[in-house]
Amino acid sequence: MPVLRLALAQTNPRVGDLVSNAEKIRHAMGRAREQDAHLVAFPEMSLTGYPIEDLALRRDFLERAHDSLTQLAADIAADGNGDTVAIIGLPTGPVSPTLRTTHPHAMAHNSAAVVQNGRVLGYYHKQHLPNYSVFDEYRNFVPGTRATAIRLLDTDIALIICEDMWQENGPLDALDALKPGLILVINGSPFERDKTDVRHKLAHAHANAMDAPLAYVNLVGGQDDLVFDGQSFVMLPSGTISDRAVAFDEDLVITDINVASHVSRADHHLETDVNVIVTDPVPSISGSSVDRIEPASMSEVEEIWRALTLGLRDYVNKNNFPSVILGLSGGIDSAVCASLAVDALGPERVVGVSMPSKYSSDHSQTDAADLAHRLSIRFQTEPIANLVSPLETQLGLDSVAAENLQARIRGVILMGLANQEGHLTLTTGNKSELAVGYSTIYGDSVGGFAPLKDVPKTLVWELARWRNSRAVALGETPPIPENSISKPPSAELRPDQTDQDSLPPYEVLDDILERYISDHASFGDIVGAGHDAATVSRIIGLVNRAEWKRRQGAIGPKISGMAFGRDRRLPITAFFG
Amino acid sequence: MPVLRLALAQTNPRVGDLVSNAEKIRHAMGRAREQDAHLVAFPEMSLTGYPIEDLALRRDFLERAHDSLTQLAADIAADGNGDTVAIIGLPTGPVSPTLRTTHPHAMAHNSAAVVQNGRVLGYYHKQHLPNYSVFDEYRNFVPGTRATAIRLLDTDIALIICEDMWQENGPLDALDALKPGLILVINGSPFERDKTDVRHKLAHAHANAMDAPLAYVNLVGGQDDLVFDGQSFVMLPSGTISDRAVAFDEDLVITDINVASHVSRADHHLETDVNVIVTDPVPSISGSSVDRIEPASMSEVEEIWRALTLGLRDYVNKNNFPSVILGLSGGIDSAVCASLAVDALGPERVVGVSMPSKYSSDHSQTDAADLAHRLSIRFQTEPIANLVSPLETQLGLDSVAAENLQARIRGVILMGLANQEGHLTLTTGNKSELAVGYSTIYGDSVGGFAPLKDVPKTLVWELARWRNSRAVALGETPPIPENSISKPPSAELRPDQTDQDSLPPYEVLDDILERYISDHASFGDIVGAGHDAATVSRIIGLVNRAEWKRRQGAIGPKISGMAFGRDRRLPITAFFG
Repeated sequence: MPVLRLALAQTNPRVGDLVSNAEKIRHAMGRAREQDAHLVAFPEMSLTGYPIEDLALRRDFLERAHDSLTQLAADIAADGNGDTVAIIGLPTGPVSPTLRTTHPHAMAHNSAAVVQNGRVLGYYHKQHLPNYSVFDEYRNFVPGTRATAIRLLDTDIALIICEDMWQENGPLDALDALKPGLILVINGSPFERDKTDVRHKLAHAHANAMDAPLAYVNLVGGQDDLVFDGQSFVMLPSGTISDRAVAFDEDLVITDINVASHVSRADHHLETDVNVIVTDPVPSISGSSVDRIEPASMSEVEEIWRALTLGLRDYVNKNNFPSVILGLSGGIDSAVCASLAVDALGPERVVGVSMPSKYSSDHSQTDAADLAHRLSIRFQTEPIANLVSPLETQLGLDSVAAENLQARIRGVILMGLANQEGHLTLTTGNKSELAVGYSTIYGDSVGGFAPLKDVPKTLVWELARWRNSRAVALGETPPIPENSISKPPSAELRPDQTDQDSLPPYEVLDDILERYISDHASFGDIVGAGHDAATVSRIIGLVNRAEWKRRQGAIGPKISGMAFGRDRRLPITAFFG
Repeated sequence: MPVLRLALAQTNPRVGDLVSNAEKIRHAMGRAREQDAHLVAFPEMSLTGYPIEDLALRRDFLERAHDSLTQLAADIAADGNGDTVAIIGLPTGPVSPTLRTTHPHAMAHNSAAVVQNGRVLGYYHKQHLPNYSVFDEYRNFVPGTRATAIRLLDTDIALIICEDMWQENGPLDALDALKPGLILVINGSPFERDKTDVRHKLAHAHANAMDAPLAYVNLVGGQDDLVFDGQSFVMLPSGTISDRAVAFDEDLVITDINVASHVSRADHHLETDVNVIVTDPVPSISGSSVDRIEPASMSEVEEIWRALTLGLRDYVNKNNFPSVILGLSGGIDSAVCASLAVDALGPERVVGVSMPSKYSSDHSQTDAADLAHRLSIRFQTEPIANLVSPLETQLGLDSVAAENLQARIRGVILMGLANQEGHLTLTTGNKSELAVGYSTIYGDSVGGFAPLKDVPKTLVWELARWRNSRAVALGETPPIPENSISKPPSAELRPDQTDQDSLPPYEVLDDILERYISDHASFGDIVGAGHDAATVSRIIGLVNRAEWKRRQGAIGPKISGMAFGRDRRLPITAFFG
């Protein structure tokens, strides 16, 4: 059995930045060649970043991607690394109009290029285009029609892209006839809690069915509302994971895989419609690949913390913000946001602002100051009473209008400081609040990024407890004041207000919301699960009426199977609940 | 040749409101039956409203739509109108999982039900699902597979839905074998400037090719960012439009059509895969249908004015707002918005607020007051100097941060009054400003609806001139002060500022934007068309950097082939311009 030395290059590209992405690929090729890799697999759309959305509809973008690939192939060869085969993801096109009859506006394939010795040997074009959840690939791409394998050493490698692995009747059906020695899947698969196990199970099913190892290489990094978690792996037919990349960071895994020769497995006389891309001779290897330290596995809460941190860090850095600013209310949401920001960016890039009003409790200020002290971040206090009262008086506001005014003056303060000093403003609202519209639009909702957008309140508490206990385990100061975790949540917009004056307990609320939003459960279903009918009816009404506010909300990292934003598309004007 | 008495019921449903939509259909059936109609065609999704977006993924919604149709069929029969055939659009499902292999998440068809004598005789399921521009139908629906005709009198009526007419290889290919006496297309086709002619040409091509009249019935009304214009029509094979419904309002067109008998046209021995739904006997007619007054045709500018008016009116009314509030700066954008609002809602439902600062010119206040006077709307003045200075001083803001502060205090005032008094806030920004980010987020951008969101600045002026000249023609007071049209546009956030300090003339800007945004032109293409390279480069940069602001913007009516919002989906974090 030949030994294939495979490199999985888990990269973090920037969408549209062909120069820096190509540079990253070129660099990884050099490192892999130093270790005699035969083949280096880069993730889906690794040359352009992902998702490129409607950039796929722009002819000049496709031309630039093509030119960039050509140049990259030449550069890799010029570096002396040309005999190593590279699999590089990119959009290709415009494709022939005859292929586009069912896709009147899309013009590109979502492709994997096979590159060696300065040339593109061939392409595979993704056949299954996800068009659900956050994905719009049927909008932006034309499906490929031909299954593809790479012949290298003397084995055939089945090459597919992401969704191809998830759907029945995929290209693996055709590829099975070749009896490939390896299944290679290049992916742009965003993080969701619980998703890792699903990927592993699916990979095992395919590896087992085709009696061949499956190598899975994934993107890593934050891109707007998505976080790619990496976690590339090699799955053996037995179900054992023989090698694994780290989570939430770039990595280059070089691994030796025993692959069956195609002569011993495939019947050469068999007619298939598979496009077989035949490579030139590849480097010869000396010794075994270096054993890696197995990446530590992590709890689900830690995964979520890391995903949120990465999503925030990449949004800030890729968009060139020097720093972030956020309001610190003394409450749990702003405390968790500030702690995430410090973990993402370091304390010197985070500014916290306390903005007490006449309704603010003493602990709101002391807890905020305590948090800032624990995090070693810049902290300033901007009382709002003297700013609010001229408006309240001039306009004659009372009741909810006056409550919103306080939140809006805080928004004006944060945006003023952000504009003056160049910070990105973070908005600290959590998913439960966004769901029921428990926020002031243009008030506490101001900001370019919402770290907790997809985190229900009950999970905010879990994250806070986890982060503090991790600090204790490391002998560090727990960042979040215990009082911020334990006190009853309140918007403090009127005397003695608490969230539970107008909402059920968060355990109850979050369960109702999960059923209604994620599970598409009906009113009857939710009541049937044991919830109070009047409460359910009220919560569903609140969720539906808040759609217009959510539509104007900041983006934030998706960590669930159903995030607000492009994952859940509903009319504002609607009469069904 | 039999005479078919056809009613085209151009209705304005409310999304999700099954009760009121069914009531509307039932009422139209009564009116059509009074005039002996054989067949009443309602638009696409007329029972549920359109687009329903991810409501199509909810099982309880599909069940309720089904129950509602069953009840409606019984009600029509109970009213004594059962022998008239009704074609009613609705989602149907959940469809069998075996049909859903390429659509792992969708579960409904986009269907037309054929209803008569209290029963649903059969369904046609839309085959071509638009998944470009604002449409996500591949996300939300499962395509049908079987062409369908209705046999009535002794003719066959080819039945298709909207996009089926626009794509090649559509169901009309199969239906052609039947030699139908009529082609019936039910539509949910949103308004775009120049689209009417395209529809007519396409209808003529099909009518001519199949040698049969084509009846086209369309929705009317505003639904979030879409405006359905109605304009249902009957196209003869010759290219003559024999009957036409009004634009931008509900209508019921009853028209007699000479239809060829199927026995005289179709070869009964021909095998087709067409599903033929055979109806019971239909009412007999007496005399001819009543001649209608031909709806007046209108100029493109008038069409746009009417589309914007309808979009605004339906957003306000369907969402139960008693009134709207907007800032009046004395400039052209707020003047046009206020005039649209008065045309949409009447003057008693519109409130204008002048919010002068120390940089405001005298004419900004006099022009605003003049506008309010001409429109007879409530007008109040809220100077901002004393509200801005405490913030400016406390925070130490200057430069752009101080300019934005003024805009944000105005936003706080409008939202405060809106919250206090129950108005919907309108934001008055135009498409050119939104494109280049020439607005203050959470400042002049506050509001739930943006009437000019898809209207470039040069078209704002055209609309103003058209509206004034229409008033003159009707002997009314022109609503928009001449000075608001003729003066140079300015944000008035610093002394002597005008838009052209930092932007090219609007004629130039709008041409660059049209090419870049609507035509997907590259930098090179735009420069090749004669624009200055440095200007083009700067404008493209501004457009790309403003994506995050647009993502948080209010919705507004789409009138172009490429509106901001779900029509144009691009990453915020991106490095390609």
